[in-house]
Amino acid sequence: MNTLNTITINAPTPYPVHIACGLLSSTLLINTCDAIAPNWVIITDNHINPLYAKPLAKRLQAHGLKTMILSVPAGEQSKTRKIKAELEDQMLAKGFHKETGIIALGGGMITDLAGFIAATYLRGIACITIPLSLLGMVDASIGGKTAVNTPFGKNLIGCFSDPAAVFIDPDVLKTLAPSHLSQGFAEMIKHALIADKAYFEQLNQHFSQLNAANTSILVKMIRQSILIKQAIVEADPLESGRRQVLNFGHTIAHALELTSNHTISHGDAVAIGLMLESHLSCQQGWLAPESLDIIFQTLKRFKLPTQLPLNITLSDLISAMQHDKKNRQGNVHFVHLAQIGRYATKQGQYSFGVDPLLLQTITQT
Amino acid sequence: MNTLNTITINAPTPYPVHIACGLLSSTLLINTCDAIAPNWVIITDNHINPLYAKPLAKRLQAHGLKTMILSVPAGEQSKTRKIKAELEDQMLAKGFHKETGIIALGGGMITDLAGFIAATYLRGIACITIPLSLLGMVDASIGGKTAVNTPFGKNLIGCFSDPAAVFIDPDVLKTLAPSHLSQGFAEMIKHALIADKAYFEQLNQHFSQLNAANTSILVKMIRQSILIKQAIVEADPLESGRRQVLNFGHTIAHALELTSNHTISHGDAVAIGLMLESHLSCQQGWLAPESLDIIFQTLKRFKLPTQLPLNITLSDLISAMQHDKKNRQGNVHFVHLAQIGRYATKQGQYSFGVDPLLLQTITQT
Repeated sequence: MNTLNTITINAPTPYPVHIACGLLSSTLLINTCDAIAPNWVIITDNHINPLYAKPLAKRLQAHGLKTMILSVPAGEQSKTRKIKAELEDQMLAKGFHKETGIIALGGGMITDLAGFIAATYLRGIACITIPLSLLGMVDASIGGKTAVNTPFGKNLIGCFSDPAAVFIDPDVLKTLAPSHLSQGFAEMIKHALIADKAYFEQLNQHFSQLNAANTSILVKMIRQSILIKQAIVEADPLESGRRQVLNFGHTIAHALELTSNHTISHGDAVAIGLMLESHLSCQQGWLAPESLDIIFQTLKRFKLPTQLPLNITLSDLISAMQHDKKNRQGNVHFVHLAQIGRYATKQGQYSFGVDPLLLQTITQT
Repeated sequence: MNTLNTITINAPTPYPVHIACGLLSSTLLINTCDAIAPNWVIITDNHINPLYAKPLAKRLQAHGLKTMILSVPAGEQSKTRKIKAELEDQMLAKGFHKETGIIALGGGMITDLAGFIAATYLRGIACITIPLSLLGMVDASIGGKTAVNTPFGKNLIGCFSDPAAVFIDPDVLKTLAPSHLSQGFAEMIKHALIADKAYFEQLNQHFSQLNAANTSILVKMIRQSILIKQAIVEADPLESGRRQVLNFGHTIAHALELTSNHTISHGDAVAIGLMLESHLSCQQGWLAPESLDIIFQTLKRFKLPTQLPLNITLSDLISAMQHDKKNRQGNVHFVHLAQIGRYATKQGQYSFGVDPLLLQTITQT
């Protein structure tokens, strides 16, 4: 394991986010588990299972910890109440009681699903999150959001529940296709856009070095994204106000994912959402028009899409947004950018209702 | 509405427990709802729906609040993950967004189920609890426990989530059969046994006046039970220590309910559990033998059962207890009484493992 970076998230029960190459095979991970519970359930997907879950289970067992792997099919389709119940029943059938911890080992789908199981199994057991995607590292693993999807939309059933610890090992990114990295870049660009112009410039400056082979720069950028997210979630853990700004780009992204039946990836949906919601910020008189091109070029640089797929109409999107949990009283609410590196606020609000017809004008330009 | 008693529970977000006859038709209830959210979903059962839910919905609607009733079949069989999902989908289909509150209107089954839905719908919306059984008034409505059952046992999936307010209207008890009241007396006797000898004596002294026609004494006793539970849950909201004492009688009670497939009521199961676990306390050298008869006479006085039903064997019970979430590392853990009015502690622990074979000896005496 190389140099360890640890960020402590000041939740009601503070928890560490460890970042270092080699963490997945470290003694720190095994010792952390040992200190928490004698029994462990690793929740993962069928792609990750042979690569990382089985070796980890062996090491935990060799250390004397009772360990079971529960593997679900990879993909957003596994993030349902039905699969949650099936996994719970397997744990109950095997006699896993209160002194059990869950290791959420995978991308954002797995960390959301496994975190929600940990939050509600016997009214809550410990969870260690090990995000294996860049998206999970910079976003899903921080802030305590857990959830499953329903036919009506993404993340509609869930709760806020913090992990006991997060382990981020950028070495695992070496085995992923570069297109998987782009998914994380979309959220990193979002963090930069809402909160940190200097970070936005660094991302653009280092983009050619931002790959799995160059972990030292990657670790710096991951750390910066986590610090931005940390500041926001610590100020508003239950998303009653400021935390809404993390939804920049996501009103459209969630609607896109729903409309495409999850055939479009979250990162791609967020990238399109960032572009369209930046347009909206501009049309609403918040963002300067010249910023739009800078955002467009940045997304392109990171090989992210910026336009709606051809097979999805705007009216499909608007209908889907009506079901999004951020849309109160029938309005469609959006976070706006005031400039690159700063979200907009109006009368103490972090998102403002926009007439859906206005959206139509924007996407046609 | 007659004199209002209000107890404020000092949870992370403090909430009031209002006690008064007439509360269900009070303006305080309507105004409390109005201050919280513009949209309300009343979750209730098919027995309560025509009696109380429909009139309440009409009053909320007359006040300008969008209100929907969701009614489930009465009985523990409705407290499942499947019914939870069905109710969530009905709320989503009707477009109930973040600015929605849930009114949990019913007995402990409804308040557990509706509370869990409120805790996880869109990652948490407000819940007002209106317990309509004496059991719910003195127990289920205080302390933030929510849950559903699984085939492996009661309350295995759930979370801690406090309501926004609790409304207790003893007038509603007038429409219940006296046998329903007994269910609540079982928990009140438990509160007295673990924490308050004077209250135990009051219950015995007033037992002939403890009925729905005599609400002034009933209100006093309900209030006393709530104060006992309040002190315990405030000291240990997540049941990591002291709160376990509220499980006195419940290790056996939950196993009984499971084994009988919920044909035995919770209060009856608790009464049998109180008796058997008192025996255990005695056999373990904690409780004086002469207290056993006093406890026996008290339960009899309140027309509560004290022995296992004939069709349930002890080995069925022991097997069911292995799945109870309070039983760690394969042991069967029990809370013990040190004397009437005081639970036992040993080396800072509030429950101690007991050899299941010992149980066999006790029930055969």
